[in-house]
Amino acid sequence: MGLYASILPLVAYAIFGTSRTLAVGPVAVLSLMTAAAAGKIAAQGSPEYLTAAILLAFLSGLILMALGVFRLGFLANFLSHPVVSGFITASGILIAASQVKHLLGISAGGHNLYEMVVQVAGKLGEVNWATVSIGLPALLFLFWVRSGLKPLLVALGMKEKAAGMLARGGPVVAVVAGILAVTFFGLADKGVRIVGEIPRGLPTLAVPGFDWALWKQLLGSAALISVIGFVESVSVAQTLAAKRRQRIDPDQELVALGAASLAAGVSGGYPVTGGFARSAVNFDAGAETPAAGAFTAVGIALAALFLTPLLYNLPQAVLAATIVVAVLSLVDFKVLSRTWSYSKRDFAAMAGTILVTLIAGVELGVTTGVLLSLVLHLYLTSKPHFAVVGQVPGTHHFRNVNRHAVVTPEHIVTIRIDESLYFANARFLEDTVYCVLGNRPDLQHLILMCPAVNHIDASGLESLEAINSRLKDAGIRLHLTEVKGPVMDRLKRTHFLEELTGKVYLNQFDAIADLDFDCAKAAIERTGKVTEPGTEPCPSQCIAGITETRG
Amino acid sequence: MGLYASILPLVAYAIFGTSRTLAVGPVAVLSLMTAAAAGKIAAQGSPEYLTAAILLAFLSGLILMALGVFRLGFLANFLSHPVVSGFITASGILIAASQVKHLLGISAGGHNLYEMVVQVAGKLGEVNWATVSIGLPALLFLFWVRSGLKPLLVALGMKEKAAGMLARGGPVVAVVAGILAVTFFGLADKGVRIVGEIPRGLPTLAVPGFDWALWKQLLGSAALISVIGFVESVSVAQTLAAKRRQRIDPDQELVALGAASLAAGVSGGYPVTGGFARSAVNFDAGAETPAAGAFTAVGIALAALFLTPLLYNLPQAVLAATIVVAVLSLVDFKVLSRTWSYSKRDFAAMAGTILVTLIAGVELGVTTGVLLSLVLHLYLTSKPHFAVVGQVPGTHHFRNVNRHAVVTPEHIVTIRIDESLYFANARFLEDTVYCVLGNRPDLQHLILMCPAVNHIDASGLESLEAINSRLKDAGIRLHLTEVKGPVMDRLKRTHFLEELTGKVYLNQFDAIADLDFDCAKAAIERTGKVTEPGTEPCPSQCIAGITETRG
Repeated sequence: MGLYASILPLVAYAIFGTSRTLAVGPVAVLSLMTAAAAGKIAAQGSPEYLTAAILLAFLSGLILMALGVFRLGFLANFLSHPVVSGFITASGILIAASQVKHLLGISAGGHNLYEMVVQVAGKLGEVNWATVSIGLPALLFLFWVRSGLKPLLVALGMKEKAAGMLARGGPVVAVVAGILAVTFFGLADKGVRIVGEIPRGLPTLAVPGFDWALWKQLLGSAALISVIGFVESVSVAQTLAAKRRQRIDPDQELVALGAASLAAGVSGGYPVTGGFARSAVNFDAGAETPAAGAFTAVGIALAALFLTPLLYNLPQAVLAATIVVAVLSLVDFKVLSRTWSYSKRDFAAMAGTILVTLIAGVELGVTTGVLLSLVLHLYLTSKPHFAVVGQVPGTHHFRNVNRHAVVTPEHIVTIRIDESLYFANARFLEDTVYCVLGNRPDLQHLILMCPAVNHIDASGLESLEAINSRLKDAGIRLHLTEVKGPVMDRLKRTHFLEELTGKVYLNQFDAIADLDFDCAKAAIERTGKVTEPGTEPCPSQCIAGITETRG
Repeated sequence: MGLYASILPLVAYAIFGTSRTLAVGPVAVLSLMTAAAAGKIAAQGSPEYLTAAILLAFLSGLILMALGVFRLGFLANFLSHPVVSGFITASGILIAASQVKHLLGISAGGHNLYEMVVQVAGKLGEVNWATVSIGLPALLFLFWVRSGLKPLLVALGMKEKAAGMLARGGPVVAVVAGILAVTFFGLADKGVRIVGEIPRGLPTLAVPGFDWALWKQLLGSAALISVIGFVESVSVAQTLAAKRRQRIDPDQELVALGAASLAAGVSGGYPVTGGFARSAVNFDAGAETPAAGAFTAVGIALAALFLTPLLYNLPQAVLAATIVVAVLSLVDFKVLSRTWSYSKRDFAAMAGTILVTLIAGVELGVTTGVLLSLVLHLYLTSKPHFAVVGQVPGTHHFRNVNRHAVVTPEHIVTIRIDESLYFANARFLEDTVYCVLGNRPDLQHLILMCPAVNHIDASGLESLEAINSRLKDAGIRLHLTEVKGPVMDRLKRTHFLEELTGKVYLNQFDAIADLDFDCAKAAIERTGKVTEPGTEPCPSQCIAGITETRG
């Protein structure tokens, strides 16, 4: 099926794709997801299992095409980098764990790490030592090839590029050695499982039959496979395009990947997408046009026609060893500590994705990651950062009184709101203003500085109206400064600007110059009273208490 | 049960609450939600139905208390104003529709508007005309009292306040008239349903039994009742507190409302919360301390002890008429058009809430509204507004080239990003920058102006790194200006600032003065070449294409 998935889909992508170097085909993560989804329908290897895998490709193709046609490519943006990289690391571990049974020559199953470990541990008594004696050396050889061979060859005087090419040939050496060992030592009779007969010839074309019950069962998995595949493929394509200053069009990519998966679905393959390793090889080899993909398809078709009988004696343990070594290169724990030091929220999303993927499977893992990152983002914006600001001496610029030495006028407080005003933080804004109010009985003007307010929704507007009318009762005028064009357009459609007790100034300096000219002038001429950071008397305490909640 | 819910809970709130004027008790919306939730468990009026209602109060009390203890009051912020007002309007319609059967003297059911209409329509042949002849006049009378009586009394020379008091007495007149009509004309024998025996006396105290299956069934409804009740109550309390410059503490309010609902749960009542009408009366009457609530409780206890027999002959149709008139005052369609003109997104959330509440019930309605407003907000921030900015002549201030006449230096483009950089818009930022890049082959410096960037998450950081390295390849330096303190703190923990090809400037004017001193000076002195709004040649087209997606 992997071979079939590498013929027609490549041609389909070559026709519709916008990347010149992306190589589509079956990739590790989608293989795992397909196996998990089809495994829920039927036993691995059964005809129903194959039907389910083919149908997944077909459905995923339809979904991707639909997303592309309706220009919904932006949905993939909701899969954040931490979630994707956490997911790929967890998938690598899962795939590697699923191959352990082949290395030990035992039968075991399990859809998550816990089940796999328990099942393998329960059958340790049945280990086939002939299998281990061929699988373990293959595994060690491949690890060594990956890490040690290239530097060795370079040290021996070989050129960098040639050494890299040779090192990439490691899996071929292992496969050939495995086949020879089975053939000459008759290992198949000693319980070493071999790949056996692989159907020879080209795929036959057929549209999967319509079975609504089965479609419904697979639709969720197909959707997730589509999105994950799309995100992986677009990341790869963008990375490679950026190197040559080319551009890709995400919505057109959706259509192209959809066409590729549909092609897989009608030609006996399973879901495909752009893979990093194969695309990098394509790029290194100098692919300049999508025709490179078409040539690859021809090569694989020839292999499917003539080379499959040669693989009859390939031990499954050697195949497992090549898979384990390949997928463990996807596992990256360093990114965890890097993310931890940058942002605890991103770390939480990543760690949550990894844990849930390992414990409960790939679909729940990704879903958890996406929801977790959305919830954490919303929580963050629901408790925004606020700062009381003052004028930086000698400039027209205003910054946080707690971080900079600034000049602040008497009877005027300026609060800079560091978030759009929307329902989740509307009440928080009111609380902040009332808190400042309580600490400054001398106040005559309150300025809300809005350079960071990108939207004000109906809830935010109601809060502003409430603040305005409450300040009016207290004899304090409310002013707005640096309100952005789109926000102002919207406010002009309401009665708020008529009811506003103060003015809307284009910029903060204009406001201070208008309300307290002497102070603004003194600040510019550096003759005003400069308050050191954090020593601003009243409101800073109040705001500090609020900003501290941000950690 | 409504009487019982108005005794102990008032005392509990008086002890724990922070509002001096809030009057808690059974309110219309929670009554509807309780009826819907309990109606799923058992037939209306059955002992199991009553048990479920009491248990809802108990569970809701526990949930509110837990939320208060863990200081999770902010969760209520995710119910936006449009969702709450849409929900209240829809609830008003639903409650009014549920009373139509009493006005017509027929038996009908239904949990949503469609079911109610169908059931009533199917039984129009069974209408009891004696009931209609007492219900309809009551309905018309009450509508007239609400809208026409007060102006009439004032026109007749009565004082404003006294006229208002008298107008409020309308329902009492209707109820007394109804009772007298039934008593003297023997209407009960003509098929007019009457209220009948109301259990007399004070509630007995009992903790609801623990039945896990029942708890599990009611937990979701109880959670929703808690949140809706809390939002309604806090809104009322804040509105009234603002009038007297008092403050309320939302987390303590959660504890107090939790105590009130628990009190309802152990004394045979159903979920309670602070209601607007009763609180407004309390406020008007001059309540200064929570003791007002305790006195109200005593009054209601006396009524429960001595007045219930008087209501024996009250026709259900008259009761229904008072309910219909009261709840229809909650229905507000004007807010729909006001919201439509301000924001299509907020309108969509409101209309979605109303429609789903009417069609599929209160719980699904609120859930839909919350999810809809979250999704719309996320969509908005995933396609942020970007602007190319230039210096406003004579100032240090920089604004959108498409909106203001500004001065822009050659070889330098400044893009102001109007959103935090997070996973949902990280790719969009890259696209924008590459788009500008493609239109300006002469570019030497790209400045990202960040006054509106309140956070940069790991995905945003990766995008910045990608942009920086791509610009480096193109020989363009990347600068950042007006990066906020908290964002800068975070960036300092990464390698990004070392890899950055340009500088980070405290403010935009410093950057231009440093990179093109002549241009900055000319702009200040108003001698620079001023570009009229929207005539900036290259990047504006590109950006305009993007900003237009914002509509």
